[in-house]
Amino acid sequence: MEPLFELPLRLPTRGSHQVLRALHQQLRAAIVDGRLQPGLRLPSTRALASTHGVSRNTAVAAYDLLLSEGYVSIKRGSGCYVAEVLSRRGAAKVAVGKSPGGKSAEGNPTAPPPTAGAPRVGTDPRVHSFWRNRQARRAAPVPDSLRYRFRCGLPDTSTFPYDIWRRLSNRAMRSLTHPDVSRDPQGLPALREAIAKHVSVSRAVACRPDDVLVTSGAQQAFDLLARVLASGRQTLVAVENPSYPPMRAVFEAVGAKLAPVPVDNDGMLVDQLPSQARIVCVTPSHQFPLGSAMSMPRRMALLEFARKNAAVVIEDDYDCEFRYDGRPLEALQTIDRHESVFYVGTFSKTMFPEVRLGFIVAPPWALEALIAAKQDADLISPFINQHALAAFIAEGHLARHIRKMRSVYSQRRRRLIEGLQRDFSHWLTPVPSFAGLHVAALLPGDAEEIVERARELGVGIGAVGRYCLGKPIQGLVFGYGVISERSIVDGLARLRQLR
Amino acid sequence: MEPLFELPLRLPTRGSHQVLRALHQQLRAAIVDGRLQPGLRLPSTRALASTHGVSRNTAVAAYDLLLSEGYVSIKRGSGCYVAEVLSRRGAAKVAVGKSPGGKSAEGNPTAPPPTAGAPRVGTDPRVHSFWRNRQARRAAPVPDSLRYRFRCGLPDTSTFPYDIWRRLSNRAMRSLTHPDVSRDPQGLPALREAIAKHVSVSRAVACRPDDVLVTSGAQQAFDLLARVLASGRQTLVAVENPSYPPMRAVFEAVGAKLAPVPVDNDGMLVDQLPSQARIVCVTPSHQFPLGSAMSMPRRMALLEFARKNAAVVIEDDYDCEFRYDGRPLEALQTIDRHESVFYVGTFSKTMFPEVRLGFIVAPPWALEALIAAKQDADLISPFINQHALAAFIAEGHLARHIRKMRSVYSQRRRRLIEGLQRDFSHWLTPVPSFAGLHVAALLPGDAEEIVERARELGVGIGAVGRYCLGKPIQGLVFGYGVISERSIVDGLARLRQLR
Repeated sequence: MEPLFELPLRLPTRGSHQVLRALHQQLRAAIVDGRLQPGLRLPSTRALASTHGVSRNTAVAAYDLLLSEGYVSIKRGSGCYVAEVLSRRGAAKVAVGKSPGGKSAEGNPTAPPPTAGAPRVGTDPRVHSFWRNRQARRAAPVPDSLRYRFRCGLPDTSTFPYDIWRRLSNRAMRSLTHPDVSRDPQGLPALREAIAKHVSVSRAVACRPDDVLVTSGAQQAFDLLARVLASGRQTLVAVENPSYPPMRAVFEAVGAKLAPVPVDNDGMLVDQLPSQARIVCVTPSHQFPLGSAMSMPRRMALLEFARKNAAVVIEDDYDCEFRYDGRPLEALQTIDRHESVFYVGTFSKTMFPEVRLGFIVAPPWALEALIAAKQDADLISPFINQHALAAFIAEGHLARHIRKMRSVYSQRRRRLIEGLQRDFSHWLTPVPSFAGLHVAALLPGDAEEIVERARELGVGIGAVGRYCLGKPIQGLVFGYGVISERSIVDGLARLRQLR
Repeated sequence: MEPLFELPLRLPTRGSHQVLRALHQQLRAAIVDGRLQPGLRLPSTRALASTHGVSRNTAVAAYDLLLSEGYVSIKRGSGCYVAEVLSRRGAAKVAVGKSPGGKSAEGNPTAPPPTAGAPRVGTDPRVHSFWRNRQARRAAPVPDSLRYRFRCGLPDTSTFPYDIWRRLSNRAMRSLTHPDVSRDPQGLPALREAIAKHVSVSRAVACRPDDVLVTSGAQQAFDLLARVLASGRQTLVAVENPSYPPMRAVFEAVGAKLAPVPVDNDGMLVDQLPSQARIVCVTPSHQFPLGSAMSMPRRMALLEFARKNAAVVIEDDYDCEFRYDGRPLEALQTIDRHESVFYVGTFSKTMFPEVRLGFIVAPPWALEALIAAKQDADLISPFINQHALAAFIAEGHLARHIRKMRSVYSQRRRRLIEGLQRDFSHWLTPVPSFAGLHVAALLPGDAEEIVERARELGVGIGAVGRYCLGKPIQGLVFGYGVISERSIVDGLARLRQLR
């Protein structure tokens, strides 16, 4: 049964790209200004296509765009719904798009009531008010037409030595039969020892195995830090703007207030930190997602800020193992003299995301509380993976794999930056960076529009604005973790059609 | 360097058991009444032995007892410390022990100052006040002298089909190379489908795969439920008394108030539920740790309570797959008609604890919020284990293993209960139960003293009081998950020396 849906749409009569753009923008406008209310089920793409005389493909593509932007969500097997999350995240302030198409979405100002089939998100008072309007961030399904995907945040696992990993996992599984396997909530001692050695070599992070807490990925590290360090509304948490939304979410969940601080090519503008900030979250090696490295004077200033204000610094070093040019800047943790830095690392980028292991190097005054919080959260991280990872590091496989991948990524990165500098310099300004798995580029126009038009050309890129709090920064993110050199070249060639 | 430690101890001159008891109780008394302050490092067992003329083994055993009771904690490589956790958990109210030995711990009323080497738990204002005094619950090291351990909460994994598990894990690892592996925060669809079928067969829990949220063990299930359902101090959470402390901890961590409700042989005394309770946590199949099953009238009354007061019920069905006698009582989730029950299951007991997978069957009105909270917590549960578990269930291995273990546990249980009834009926009253991996027995005297004396005989049993809020219930817990029939018989034979 199709839900009630009587939104008047005004669409061009020809040009499938123009139709898509108009359809997407008019739906988006209707969602933003409330004519399509949260929880409302949208018509199927088939129904939308037949009612409005557009092709089915165009309808699918329009929903895809809305989905990737978070305006709608997919319920398995029951269709597409206007997202609830918008109301909480200040959807009213989301730009509706600048092209003239956006203006034409007029009509019925009273939205139809939510239908019975809609999920009951956001209604039940038994759910904590904060969570009442929350929805999981589900990845948008990728249309087959997207041939060149500059995906961000994913490593290339095609040459990962899974055979070695399987062998080490099997060895770990055999040790499971021992009745007194370690259940240390801080993490398997052998793994903490391996991590301590690994970060001291790869990042000059000074730590002993006892300073390391093994976590179920970096996300759990953020979550534990938020629980232990933030005291609800009294805590002001300074975050870079832009920054990683899932990291921000855990601080919002404990009720902390966020203070966005701008970044430039030298990292966070430390002199703009509000003095009340008690927690400062930074990505000094490779600003996420812009890519700049925090300069040494800023690093020193940040540590001085922490010392003066009894604040702590959370240093998210998410993809720092892949460094290509320039002298490596020491980690904040390394140069800190006042036990104010929590260093967060992950194996999702150096190995594969499914390993679900990360770690915190914590100052001693907070360690015991973090371990207790970890125990509350999930008792211990998966034993088999911990055991296998300890051996994988200790036997040198991780260092070897990183070395190999650094050279692969370095080639891709060179190809990408060469291409951007050669063919796009008239409208794209790459942000200088020396590490990681993606490059960002700023532009004068509307980045969302570029992303959308790129998608029509079969090229998937990201918009910096999606990581921003408040006014979006106009920029594009090109990930090169899971795209071949060949596809980088071909994808950029397609993008040249845009300007 | 040994810390300052000048506590006068008065110990008997002979009888190693008497010396141990006196040493243990005088140290405990000194900790409880504050002469030994939280954070203070205790002397090494070697120093204690030489200063007070006791054997080293006796000193080790005394620390062991204090550790298992939570009065002290071990810091790796740096010794034994007076636990910080006591101040928060109302240590002043802990019974000091009733034997005359406890009275003799007199002397210096001013405690020595904490030494420089003590861990800085509980001091730094940058840690959230709730977490400032927290320490992880670390398992006490087991003295070699403990030959018969009636451990609670652990399954026998000696005959677990690890070869099959390895094969399925290897298959899962091979699928990792696929670039678009599922990253559904709700859990691998194939696993949710397998779980839905499994609980509908084994527990008559009615659910579809979409009602299931895969969690990183039952502990994460409790944690997510606490986050999503409890709104800080406004939420009163009713828990059985006794109950599982790590479950209670997550509600305390979000600031909720706990209301302990007594239990009897028919489960929780539902008519004693405070009407303001918004969350009710129960173990209706097998009360933890007493073992009774909630009667059907109580089940109906509890669901009616939830309906009338807009409360929710968290049904922890932690070891219900092992049922031996009596007609199975339907799960609360099965008979609920008002979407008020959250059913929590785990694979730690039916498989092995290191699998770290559990699940929630949630009513639809709360599911999306739980998934969002899960995503904040650790993005997704470990992929390889999810994948392997899905196949393990779907191919019938889990059902087969449960069947096999039910027969093994059934024998052990019969042996245990027969022994208790035959030789201990003059002072132990087993609590009737029909499921699970442990049996509890009540007694008129001091259970802690019995536990201690049993330990001296080389027999490890637990005290019900450790799971209580407020006045301890005098009872013993006999786990039979990881003890052979032979050891059950021999261990009970030793225990007969106690009375």
